[in-house]
Amino acid sequence: MARSLLYPDSPATAVRLAESVWTPDSPRLPSAQFPAWLAERAAATEFAVAPIPFERARGWGFDERTGDLRHASGRFFAVEGLAVASAQGDWEQPIIVQPEIGILGIVVKEFDGVLHCLMQAKVEPGNVNGVQLSPTVQATHSNYTRVHQGREIPYLELFTRRANARVLVDVLQSEQGSWFLHKRNRNMVVEVTEDIPTLDDFCWLTLGQLQAMLRVDNLVNMDARTVLSCLPFARPGAPADADPFVTALTRSLDPALGARHRDADVRSWFTEAKTRSELTVRRRPLDGVAGWSRDGERIGRADGRHFQIIAVDVTAGSREVSRWSQPLLAPAERGVVAFLARRFDGVLHFLVHARVQHGYLDRVEMAPTVQCLPGSHPDPAVRPRFLDYLLGIDPARIRYDVLQSEEGGRFHHAVNRYVVAEVDADFPTEVPPDYLWVALHQLIELLRHSHYLNVEARSLVTCLHSLW
Amino acid sequence: MARSLLYPDSPATAVRLAESVWTPDSPRLPSAQFPAWLAERAAATEFAVAPIPFERARGWGFDERTGDLRHASGRFFAVEGLAVASAQGDWEQPIIVQPEIGILGIVVKEFDGVLHCLMQAKVEPGNVNGVQLSPTVQATHSNYTRVHQGREIPYLELFTRRANARVLVDVLQSEQGSWFLHKRNRNMVVEVTEDIPTLDDFCWLTLGQLQAMLRVDNLVNMDARTVLSCLPFARPGAPADADPFVTALTRSLDPALGARHRDADVRSWFTEAKTRSELTVRRRPLDGVAGWSRDGERIGRADGRHFQIIAVDVTAGSREVSRWSQPLLAPAERGVVAFLARRFDGVLHFLVHARVQHGYLDRVEMAPTVQCLPGSHPDPAVRPRFLDYLLGIDPARIRYDVLQSEEGGRFHHAVNRYVVAEVDADFPTEVPPDYLWVALHQLIELLRHSHYLNVEARSLVTCLHSLW
Repeated sequence: MARSLLYPDSPATAVRLAESVWTPDSPRLPSAQFPAWLAERAAATEFAVAPIPFERARGWGFDERTGDLRHASGRFFAVEGLAVASAQGDWEQPIIVQPEIGILGIVVKEFDGVLHCLMQAKVEPGNVNGVQLSPTVQATHSNYTRVHQGREIPYLELFTRRANARVLVDVLQSEQGSWFLHKRNRNMVVEVTEDIPTLDDFCWLTLGQLQAMLRVDNLVNMDARTVLSCLPFARPGAPADADPFVTALTRSLDPALGARHRDADVRSWFTEAKTRSELTVRRRPLDGVAGWSRDGERIGRADGRHFQIIAVDVTAGSREVSRWSQPLLAPAERGVVAFLARRFDGVLHFLVHARVQHGYLDRVEMAPTVQCLPGSHPDPAVRPRFLDYLLGIDPARIRYDVLQSEEGGRFHHAVNRYVVAEVDADFPTEVPPDYLWVALHQLIELLRHSHYLNVEARSLVTCLHSLW
Repeated sequence: MARSLLYPDSPATAVRLAESVWTPDSPRLPSAQFPAWLAERAAATEFAVAPIPFERARGWGFDERTGDLRHASGRFFAVEGLAVASAQGDWEQPIIVQPEIGILGIVVKEFDGVLHCLMQAKVEPGNVNGVQLSPTVQATHSNYTRVHQGREIPYLELFTRRANARVLVDVLQSEQGSWFLHKRNRNMVVEVTEDIPTLDDFCWLTLGQLQAMLRVDNLVNMDARTVLSCLPFARPGAPADADPFVTALTRSLDPALGARHRDADVRSWFTEAKTRSELTVRRRPLDGVAGWSRDGERIGRADGRHFQIIAVDVTAGSREVSRWSQPLLAPAERGVVAFLARRFDGVLHFLVHARVQHGYLDRVEMAPTVQCLPGSHPDPAVRPRFLDYLLGIDPARIRYDVLQSEEGGRFHHAVNRYVVAEVDADFPTEVPPDYLWVALHQLIELLRHSHYLNVEARSLVTCLHSLW
């Protein structure tokens, strides 16, 4: 019989992912040895970061006419100004402009019948703790289209020339909508079957191992979390757990159990939010941004809220030493990113916020219930909704509470407290029109497509997978 | 037992749509009486359209500084200039700027157990033939948020306050990417169960009746075609037809039969096309647009290619007479919009083009194999790909060939020849990287989401449904 010309879009992928999820350890790098391996990689990494005045940031300068902060080559990114007019108010702010599309990619491969992810111990200048666990590849477009001018990026070809690779995930997703203008990256997972070398700084981990690491502060970096969130997870073989929360979470993965709102209604709610949103965004010279000022070492607000722009000098490398300067965005404080959750008929739902943010390509994305820097919104009249409820919740209702870092290549010590908490019975089931109770299987389905879930919601979805 | 709090996302909708598809006639308005009904509505419609010089277009004028063509109120839309730099070349052109999101909505309701669509006989100033069959509601955002200032739009509340309506479709979709900048409309289908009046100019038709009408030139308008394309069609109960083309088309609706490319690979191909595309779009004053000039009656090119901007005066209404002027975009000629199709293992696939267009919010959407004004690309070196193949194809291979109109509210006599043709065995299975063979069930799945299929591809998908 002739080989069929058609490929099924196999649900076998979900089963194979589940097998990896249910494999909590692996002889490739036993979990007990992982801390020592990571410490060794950190020790082998020579990396020094020092704050410097802008004038000492080599290659970077303020445009004479606009005050925009740019690299002389025109590459990398720029800090410009933005004027925002929205239903939440009007304001101006600096913003990072980086329109290029980079690749965040994880290679997966079967060892002994179980999928493993090729992860990298990678240091970034803004990390609070030096080395974190990163995807196989993090490459900006400048990086990967001009590799002949610099060091080759290991494993990049597995994503750009995929002759022997099978794509599991390949989707554009946005990044921080309050700090970036129209930034998005290509989130990719490819499976290879050929033998590939395991370079220094790289290790193979099962999804079960990675999910355990998501319960550790500042270990799995933002780029890894967003890529992992886009995998088509199901949970066949979830244990009939005695814990009713885990049971409700497992049921939330099963489309056959339905949900509080039909899929068509979830999409309609999102369309309605986009139609309703009023947002005007105008780029303007950084020099003229109202409420912000610049001295030799920082661009910030007099009240210290939101963030500052600073510059750092970086020295890296053991064999080839490389050295560069760059700006970083330093948030004013630790943020809070949280899903409130509630069971309906024993199925866990998450309270999703249709959030207008000025940096998104299309104005609105689905966000966690709470996402803010609490100290930057002290006025009780405009306190972020559900923040005070979350901060006052019975600790016994908190199911996940871990510090996670945002991207250390652009942000300085940007750490958020990621929380999942179950509301009590008094919490209203009817919520404001820009919020909706959504089941996990509905979020996972939407993650096949661009620009539904924002980066904070994607991170939280990945964290949820660590709760089994 | 307590009522479940959860709704299943029911596949019953597809079954009910199929029942409507397989109902070729209806006592609500028998197909044999439809021509007479439409002629009566046309006769009852007083409507006169006359080309006028721009200076006589009341309310419209050219901005003194930029030459942009605008309404004095700032409402409706504007004609501005655009400079485009792309891999296909650099050029400048006028473009219609209409950033507001309107509603294109069809009400459906069961009569005798079969879903019927509430369609409207509607005249638009740019139509070649006066009245066409339109959705229940076509409303710009200015229309529907300021209705107190004008006539009420019938049935609008069924879309804006949906207490008793069930949403089947609610998705933002783009419109012509070469003529509009970032224009999109909310495509909606809502099902009602309550009794609602059937106003003059409105009629109830089954999907089977509508699909027969899609084989008639210039009858079902563009807005109706795009809304219908977003319905979650399946084809349970398709006949075991002797015609191998119809059999292959039926098989193309069945996800269980798979496809030439996995769903993940279709999405990856689309992501790759967006990442690869190089497109820079700058707005500029209409006065300075290179290659275009304005006289008292038109804005156009010396070579007559592409399109002109003209103005018309419109008198409408039988009871309340209303009169207005407006600009229209008049294409230079009849266009060609075509899918080439091919069977793989007996499953029909369509050759989809990842098309870069300057008016899209995100640069690339999936387009038909051929989409162009043939006379505007006479140079054989840059002839649109597959156009000459299509024009020379054996007529026996043409499965659909009908003239369809584009939106008569903005375009003057914009008619395209919509074609579906099966390629012969010599046609290469390997195609250029921006083309892909895609099965119909894959297109239908993508139509649940915004900005995958462009308006021409959506129209063609609706036409395909008329081929059973």
